[in-house]
Amino acid sequence: MGDGVRSSGVPSLSTPVCIIGSGPAAHTAAIYAARAQMWPILFEGMMANGVAAGGQLTTTTSVENFPGFPGGIGGYELCQRFRDQSEEQGTRIFTETVVKVDLRSRPFQVWSDERHVQAATVIIATGAVARRLHFPGADEGDGGFWNRGISACAVCDGALPMFRNKPLAVVGGGDTALEEALFLTHYASRVYVIHRRDELRASKVMQKRALENRGIEFVWSHMVVEAHGEKLLSAITLQSTKTGERQRLEVAGLFFAIGHDPATAFLEGQLALDEQKYIITNAGSTQTSVEGVFAAGDVQDKQYRQAITAAGTGCMAALEAERWLAAHTDELTAVTQSWEGVAVTPTNS
Amino acid sequence: MGDGVRSSGVPSLSTPVCIIGSGPAAHTAAIYAARAQMWPILFEGMMANGVAAGGQLTTTTSVENFPGFPGGIGGYELCQRFRDQSEEQGTRIFTETVVKVDLRSRPFQVWSDERHVQAATVIIATGAVARRLHFPGADEGDGGFWNRGISACAVCDGALPMFRNKPLAVVGGGDTALEEALFLTHYASRVYVIHRRDELRASKVMQKRALENRGIEFVWSHMVVEAHGEKLLSAITLQSTKTGERQRLEVAGLFFAIGHDPATAFLEGQLALDEQKYIITNAGSTQTSVEGVFAAGDVQDKQYRQAITAAGTGCMAALEAERWLAAHTDELTAVTQSWEGVAVTPTNS
Repeated sequence: MGDGVRSSGVPSLSTPVCIIGSGPAAHTAAIYAARAQMWPILFEGMMANGVAAGGQLTTTTSVENFPGFPGGIGGYELCQRFRDQSEEQGTRIFTETVVKVDLRSRPFQVWSDERHVQAATVIIATGAVARRLHFPGADEGDGGFWNRGISACAVCDGALPMFRNKPLAVVGGGDTALEEALFLTHYASRVYVIHRRDELRASKVMQKRALENRGIEFVWSHMVVEAHGEKLLSAITLQSTKTGERQRLEVAGLFFAIGHDPATAFLEGQLALDEQKYIITNAGSTQTSVEGVFAAGDVQDKQYRQAITAAGTGCMAALEAERWLAAHTDELTAVTQSWEGVAVTPTNS
Repeated sequence: MGDGVRSSGVPSLSTPVCIIGSGPAAHTAAIYAARAQMWPILFEGMMANGVAAGGQLTTTTSVENFPGFPGGIGGYELCQRFRDQSEEQGTRIFTETVVKVDLRSRPFQVWSDERHVQAATVIIATGAVARRLHFPGADEGDGGFWNRGISACAVCDGALPMFRNKPLAVVGGGDTALEEALFLTHYASRVYVIHRRDELRASKVMQKRALENRGIEFVWSHMVVEAHGEKLLSAITLQSTKTGERQRLEVAGLFFAIGHDPATAFLEGQLALDEQKYIITNAGSTQTSVEGVFAAGDVQDKQYRQAITAAGTGCMAALEAERWLAAHTDELTAVTQSWEGVAVTPTNS
């Protein structure tokens, strides 16, 4: 890849494929792209969207459903293995967050705070981030308990000393909510699952586990309307979604597990997104509304959302980018003109 | 699951989901189905389509592109890990080949030689098998050298003593052909790649590796028209696809690497197949032409064909089967009526 300095002063690089993301989709795309001699540059982000590189998976203690790991594997360890393999195959990884892209002209342009990249193709695998609720006391700053008892990731924060042997609450009714509640039982004196409906949408296996766990108590048909405390959270006010009646619940921790938002804000309307801001891809493909731009993983998937399905689409994205480049050698030439060092010439186009 | 004996005399079982196959797609489907308390029964086959359980992947020495395994992992070991995890999660595995299915009535019926299964949903992940060429001397029996020098899997057979330090030939021009040729260089005195065209359709990385390898010699624009030998193969006749001219080439081994056929013969026109006999699924889904029947992996994929994409679609199939069952509890009731023991009641439908 050619390294240079643009007039703006930030270092400039060129590559056949720039990958944005750090989870199973991004690194699987990188593994395949590197093996296809596409010299991938990957921006894994630096606390992008408030999440450490590796994405949502890093916050899962034991992953039991990623095939190849009987007995399970830690989420953080699994991500590290993806990253190691990606780097081993030749991916150039930058721990920088992408702040801007230009997908309207070719070659595509990608900027982090420290770098500028020209890319013949782009693979977006930025994932999705956990949703938060907002009510008095829920946010950052004065009188708010965000990160002082309130969190959107039980598995990330639940083991902190401030939560040990205290009553804790999880908000939500899906798999994640129950998984987080089960996780918290290892630390808490009691775990409340607060759900605004009177039935769960979690899978049967998770429901069974949570309902049978004596450390978990369900608070049906209630929502959280206020958080209280001194320096740290000490209680919440619940309101019935049926009668409107309120009650106070003493808790040292409150964890939101109410869904996710795709990390697509940086795309600024340059790609077709659906009404929930997920990237729209052609069915059975990772092709986005812009030719040469591909999307993989949770950023384009609100249906399956699994590490293994994300990895599968990452592979698809790399193969599709490779095929697209083979059919558009002029695009490759445009980026290779500025290269130094390695020359990549397609031999089968 | 209920076990019984039907009037036909073979043992009969009932299950919410019957999975047919033994590769990454089948076992990933099983892992997810088991965790969703769908009590999967999986037929891994007994040399089904002439292939050992585990499918095509078992015949690959080192898998470097399945994410999670930096440094690579043996294909056989990886398959064993899939199977162990699937069993660990509760999959009931039978090493029997499915000989017949009835997908026209509900519950669906699946038969092996030794067993009959009633299933509310079926996931087909039978994969694809390597194609063979047929010319004088290519087949089994008298005057044929099949399994006596001719094989469709270099990686399975190439290490046999009969091939050591001998000239060998691979037929094909794709990734598999080059991968097999590279593998054979470890054993052969010389490896010929015979290709009927004058350019390869393999990926750039594989082309580069093969073209740079001194142990490999390319024979462009030729096809094999006859095989010769005494008990074992000793030579082949090649014919130019341009001039028709013939030449003799001394080789102790001939390996076909010319593509695959999906294992769908047992479906006997009960599901919509395309012109190449691959199962047709809805785009971006594993749903087949029959509601409640899903297809995953290479049996429905002629585009990506990777272990990781197969695993991804296996997960999708299990999640889709689970959702379909939750919306069709009557189908579940139909199979559970005959059960003994465990009662499975959907709690979130």
